[in-house]
Amino acid sequence: MPQTDYDIVIIGAGPAGLTAGIYAARARMNVLLVEKAAPGGQIIITDWVENYPGFPEGISGYDLGEKMLNQAKKLGLEITTEEVTAMELSPAVKTLHLGDKTITAKSLIIASGASPRKLNVGEEKFMGKGVSFCATCDAPFFRDKTVVAVGGGDTAVQEAIFLTKFVNKVYLVHRRDELRATKILQERALNNDKIEFVWDSVVTGMDGFFGVENVHVKNVKTEETRTIKADGCFVWIGIVPNTGFLNDSLELDEWGFIKANHHMETSVPGVFAVGDVRDTPLRQIATAVGDGAVAAVSAEHFVENFAG
Amino acid sequence: MPQTDYDIVIIGAGPAGLTAGIYAARARMNVLLVEKAAPGGQIIITDWVENYPGFPEGISGYDLGEKMLNQAKKLGLEITTEEVTAMELSPAVKTLHLGDKTITAKSLIIASGASPRKLNVGEEKFMGKGVSFCATCDAPFFRDKTVVAVGGGDTAVQEAIFLTKFVNKVYLVHRRDELRATKILQERALNNDKIEFVWDSVVTGMDGFFGVENVHVKNVKTEETRTIKADGCFVWIGIVPNTGFLNDSLELDEWGFIKANHHMETSVPGVFAVGDVRDTPLRQIATAVGDGAVAAVSAEHFVENFAG
Repeated sequence: MPQTDYDIVIIGAGPAGLTAGIYAARARMNVLLVEKAAPGGQIIITDWVENYPGFPEGISGYDLGEKMLNQAKKLGLEITTEEVTAMELSPAVKTLHLGDKTITAKSLIIASGASPRKLNVGEEKFMGKGVSFCATCDAPFFRDKTVVAVGGGDTAVQEAIFLTKFVNKVYLVHRRDELRATKILQERALNNDKIEFVWDSVVTGMDGFFGVENVHVKNVKTEETRTIKADGCFVWIGIVPNTGFLNDSLELDEWGFIKANHHMETSVPGVFAVGDVRDTPLRQIATAVGDGAVAAVSAEHFVENFAG
Repeated sequence: MPQTDYDIVIIGAGPAGLTAGIYAARARMNVLLVEKAAPGGQIIITDWVENYPGFPEGISGYDLGEKMLNQAKKLGLEITTEEVTAMELSPAVKTLHLGDKTITAKSLIIASGASPRKLNVGEEKFMGKGVSFCATCDAPFFRDKTVVAVGGGDTAVQEAIFLTKFVNKVYLVHRRDELRATKILQERALNNDKIEFVWDSVVTGMDGFFGVENVHVKNVKTEETRTIKADGCFVWIGIVPNTGFLNDSLELDEWGFIKANHHMETSVPGVFAVGDVRDTPLRQIATAVGDGAVAAVSAEHFVENFAG
């Protein structure tokens, strides 16, 4: 195998990338983690985490991200703040462009994450203060409250039904006059007394003092507007993988997520994908750390067995 | 769907089962966790954990198990100390025999774990004091030491090679005069200066004051015995899944682990397998919690969609 700068390069410092880094550094691999922004990934904007095992009192996403980062650093992981702008992948060498710099590696772990599609109506300022993109994560924080939910696909309807176990009422706002979700989910939602449908409508804004208090909605057919009093707004209008730098070099699923098998192997030997950016059945911190551990061990075996 | 005692029953309170419990209880499912012994699983006999993300200073396995247990209890998980002795599984109803008691559930998450095959030469008293079953977990604790390793299969040879990154010397004790491992691993081990092979031999005992100091070895052909001065003993002679109660009701892989896909679905609808007992590529706390989260959400969807 040709000489390279690194055995393993990891892209992204969320829970999946940091865990891969913890394992690879601890295994004394020659490894670099590249992160374009602040380490921690999506979780650093997560207000409170109750379901990552090991923290009975819960922990803020920011603190958890920092703990994982410190653990990786303590085990000797080298981290650089740079953006991968392009790459060329071959089984033997992976070449990464970081602006005008170029680095090479024998193997690559992609942990670049995904972002929920935004409404872009100013909801950012209510993140962790009423706005959420994940009912599994946040529904228990809205016991006996009223919430607005946005979307009409499988995830939106499944999550809206899940919400009704906790909240008093869900206004489900959908831009069309029928749901896209599968039949059985539709029936269950339509028969659920706690869900009121707001058809042909979009959310145009929200306001509140400490957190969400009002959600503003517009009917796209009649142009009528109304204000819904609500303590929260769940947004499920899609999730976008962060794969802009891939240059079509890996096989993706129909939604653009990187295809990977249970060893986290992608369509190119020595390239692994983990966490939110892969075609995973669930996007949670717990699943991200599992992916990261598997990929690090897979990458280690790949490097060792190729290096002879 | 017929009435059952529970929506979900989880078997086993290691990291995989407790995480499934955390997710299922938090999702307000009617869920019971059955554990035959002390909650925590294998990790409660793990001296020190450095690679579970979120604990930069490391944590004892016992403390981590207790934290996960307390988190599950705090979220309302019902836990009972009983042994599942047999079961009958159908897509609609899962019947579990707990001694002379019988309970039913719509779905079942099997997290009963696996145990490393023991030497049975008194190594139990040196667990966490020099005896280990996992180089990925424990090799960094043996920097610049001398260790004995036992086994001749892929895992043994791969782990022995991994150990040489940390230790000064590995005596690899194998009961035959050649390795069973794949060719490439054999070559790498045979060419590794730090590995000395002790062929045709078995470990007959070990002693030491605070931890392992001497490992006693016998040649099975010549009956000669020798004592190797060593600070540790790694045992890789197999891993045995805890599946005695299954009554051949689920499809297993060739080593007896439960086959499960990436939704953790087994060959029977509504039965999920997670953690060490499934056919997983890696057996770590990080991977167990990922499995547990996925299975809980899969079980929840199974119950909701069948219950209509």
